[in-house]
Amino acid sequence: MTDLRLAGLAARLPGLRLLSTPAELEYYGRDWTRRWTPAPLAIALPANIDEVQAIVRWANEERVAIVPSGGRTGLSGGAVAANGELVLSLERMNQVLDFNAVDRTLTVQPGVILQKVHEAAQEHDLIYPVDFAARGSCSIGGNISTNAGGIRVIRYGNTREWIAGLKVVAGNGELLDLNRGLIKNSSGYDFRQLLIGSEGTLGIVVEATLKLAEPPPPSQVMLLALPDMDALMQVFALFRQRLSLQAFEFFTDIALNHVLAHGAQRAIDGDYPYYVVTEFDAADEVAQETALAAFEHAMEQGWVSDGAIAQSESQAAALWRLREGITESLAPHKPYKNDVSVRISAVPAFLHEMQDLLGREYPDIEVVWFGHIGDGNLHINVLRPEGLAEDAFIAQCEHVTKLLAETLHRHGGSISAEHGIGLVKRAYLESTRSAAEIALMRGVRQVFDPNGILNPGKVMTAD
Amino acid sequence: MTDLRLAGLAARLPGLRLLSTPAELEYYGRDWTRRWTPAPLAIALPANIDEVQAIVRWANEERVAIVPSGGRTGLSGGAVAANGELVLSLERMNQVLDFNAVDRTLTVQPGVILQKVHEAAQEHDLIYPVDFAARGSCSIGGNISTNAGGIRVIRYGNTREWIAGLKVVAGNGELLDLNRGLIKNSSGYDFRQLLIGSEGTLGIVVEATLKLAEPPPPSQVMLLALPDMDALMQVFALFRQRLSLQAFEFFTDIALNHVLAHGAQRAIDGDYPYYVVTEFDAADEVAQETALAAFEHAMEQGWVSDGAIAQSESQAAALWRLREGITESLAPHKPYKNDVSVRISAVPAFLHEMQDLLGREYPDIEVVWFGHIGDGNLHINVLRPEGLAEDAFIAQCEHVTKLLAETLHRHGGSISAEHGIGLVKRAYLESTRSAAEIALMRGVRQVFDPNGILNPGKVMTAD
Repeated sequence: MTDLRLAGLAARLPGLRLLSTPAELEYYGRDWTRRWTPAPLAIALPANIDEVQAIVRWANEERVAIVPSGGRTGLSGGAVAANGELVLSLERMNQVLDFNAVDRTLTVQPGVILQKVHEAAQEHDLIYPVDFAARGSCSIGGNISTNAGGIRVIRYGNTREWIAGLKVVAGNGELLDLNRGLIKNSSGYDFRQLLIGSEGTLGIVVEATLKLAEPPPPSQVMLLALPDMDALMQVFALFRQRLSLQAFEFFTDIALNHVLAHGAQRAIDGDYPYYVVTEFDAADEVAQETALAAFEHAMEQGWVSDGAIAQSESQAAALWRLREGITESLAPHKPYKNDVSVRISAVPAFLHEMQDLLGREYPDIEVVWFGHIGDGNLHINVLRPEGLAEDAFIAQCEHVTKLLAETLHRHGGSISAEHGIGLVKRAYLESTRSAAEIALMRGVRQVFDPNGILNPGKVMTAD
Repeated sequence: MTDLRLAGLAARLPGLRLLSTPAELEYYGRDWTRRWTPAPLAIALPANIDEVQAIVRWANEERVAIVPSGGRTGLSGGAVAANGELVLSLERMNQVLDFNAVDRTLTVQPGVILQKVHEAAQEHDLIYPVDFAARGSCSIGGNISTNAGGIRVIRYGNTREWIAGLKVVAGNGELLDLNRGLIKNSSGYDFRQLLIGSEGTLGIVVEATLKLAEPPPPSQVMLLALPDMDALMQVFALFRQRLSLQAFEFFTDIALNHVLAHGAQRAIDGDYPYYVVTEFDAADEVAQETALAAFEHAMEQGWVSDGAIAQSESQAAALWRLREGITESLAPHKPYKNDVSVRISAVPAFLHEMQDLLGREYPDIEVVWFGHIGDGNLHINVLRPEGLAEDAFIAQCEHVTKLLAETLHRHGGSISAEHGIGLVKRAYLESTRSAAEIALMRGVRQVFDPNGILNPGKVMTAD
């Protein structure tokens, strides 16, 4: 049956690509969360900014909700369309538009995949330094909408730091050309910054100008095995002080076992409870000796039980795979995910409380930890036991998340470090943001999107 | 005569320091702009956050406008109180509250002077890298409210990059504790970022957690004399490619003559139209030789006519004084200031148009240029001829600013790079921000400050 509103959209934009087979609705209606049943109205695939703007204007007139959609690799349900929304997929707007050597910027459409951004920067001997395991399928528009972090934050910060300009179609249908690549611009409210991380609830990113950086010096990758959690913070403090870190990632023995079972190669014999993959500048022999000395000091102190250093690029890739392969190795288990952060200085106290909490609440459930310890960011993946029904499992996890949110609140932490709030963390927003802040968020959303058509129900409940 | 509203405030907050002598009203009622006659209602000097919040609540009830006030070194009139406002000075809230070695953060009250922040960081062998000539009198709260830039932006970015947490009393009287020092926090709209650069129109900064950085390697300071403007961009491209720049500042011969007349020492004989002070990493002999080779290459190409390199800290300070002393040397002339920016790649074309424009419109008026060429940021100071009345002079300058704003608009630039909009640039906001953006700014202001009591008429005209 033809939806009359859709027929109106098709009549208004005869060239617009619209999809609506059941397979397409399912494919575009969900992200990497698998909790909701996709039920979009249809899928629109605009080819340019004009079409995006026309769709948003039509949606305002017809009061049709829009779910902006990129690579749909999100883990918080921000791109889920389960309530008859129009999915506005940016996947056809996937071109690198411009490289400017003087400004050191790359201007891209929102559907460009992160890896293509990396490659485009490398063609000019520069780098776009935001990086994480989903690089092959996530889109830059989605990265911006969640202020994506990843494995290089300790050196380069989050996506926010790398956005020099942003074109956005706001919820009210206006096209905004924000900051236009300027380095200095103190002319009123910086809406570029407000839009970054707003998860498609204020506007749709239709173009971005990305800052690029000089490549870092040659680096080395090291794997460390650690005896306990306290040692982790000691090693981090030592390495941060002595080396120029590019990454410092940790994971547990349980995580390692999953990634090994998934085909990765063991690099250290023996079993240890914690592991770290770290990468650091090692341009010359002096730097390499400094790193070795730091490692030896950590061994002497008993903070490190064993270690391995990559002697080639392929060995470095193998060590990185132990960390980067975790999410994929867990995916078949459809894990329940927490992605939390505290200040680095709060990590030890928080970790102890969290270990107690998880041990108490998940006595018979496998919990896989890993994360970006140098950013105070921990990923907690809870695996459903085979005998437990999915609904009951999620109910139990939600109960624990509530307790975890209370613990986070006491430690000044965040219920979402880098995944966003979406649908998954919406019920826990109050643990991180005050009632006054949430009221302001609703007010600001009302200003940008007075009819509430953009991603309603994401981040905050729909009014 | 006692103002009844003030009497009510004093009754509500018996401990609050209130000032109201004519000298105090004048002193606190103006900033480094000297165009408006101060006429505040009174001056409140709260001692803590509770008092700030109580004042804002009182102001909402009584509909009294508040001008938040820091070091009043602003150049756009953002801290001017010329319409019976209550000046809320943060100068008594001037303590460094906390240093956290693990997080590498410094938590400060808003009235702390920038130089004190530098010193507090240095005590812990770290740096707070935002720096500019007003460091001895500007306050960190004011820096945040204008997203202050300065002389190290090319290496470290603007103030925005260094704010890990912000406590703010919003215009509606709510105390917001934004981001709390987290490195990763993707939990809804980042109001910390929205508040930075909002010039006291959304909230009053009452506490800030600043990120600190490792000190840079030892550096060298070089003065270059250049034959023309085109050479400037060539030298910048060369130096940026070959060296690790900490600063790259330019000024004209006219600027140099002012600063020499003000007591600075000449470092290069002869007269040249353009000069650059640049500072770059020079940790070892290799780096120093690289710098010398870059200089020699620039000489061979004819891009540089002469140069001097500092051989000691005092010589480095003397070279820096040639650049940093300019603003102070011009102050007696009460210059009309433009502070504009374009993308670096747009600098050459913009400069040529601007030179033509200024030559045409200011045929008999001295115009002093300097700026941060590596950020695309130019400061244009217009000096009033002795015979010209101030009103007529400002009218002429405003006419030129209108033309300049049109030129900037064509080049995608900004009418305020780092000074803010305040009162001075308010009429030109439309050259940089679209009507749709300004409408959203008004809407957002309405959400944070529904009664419009915070700095009304700054940035945008009062409704």
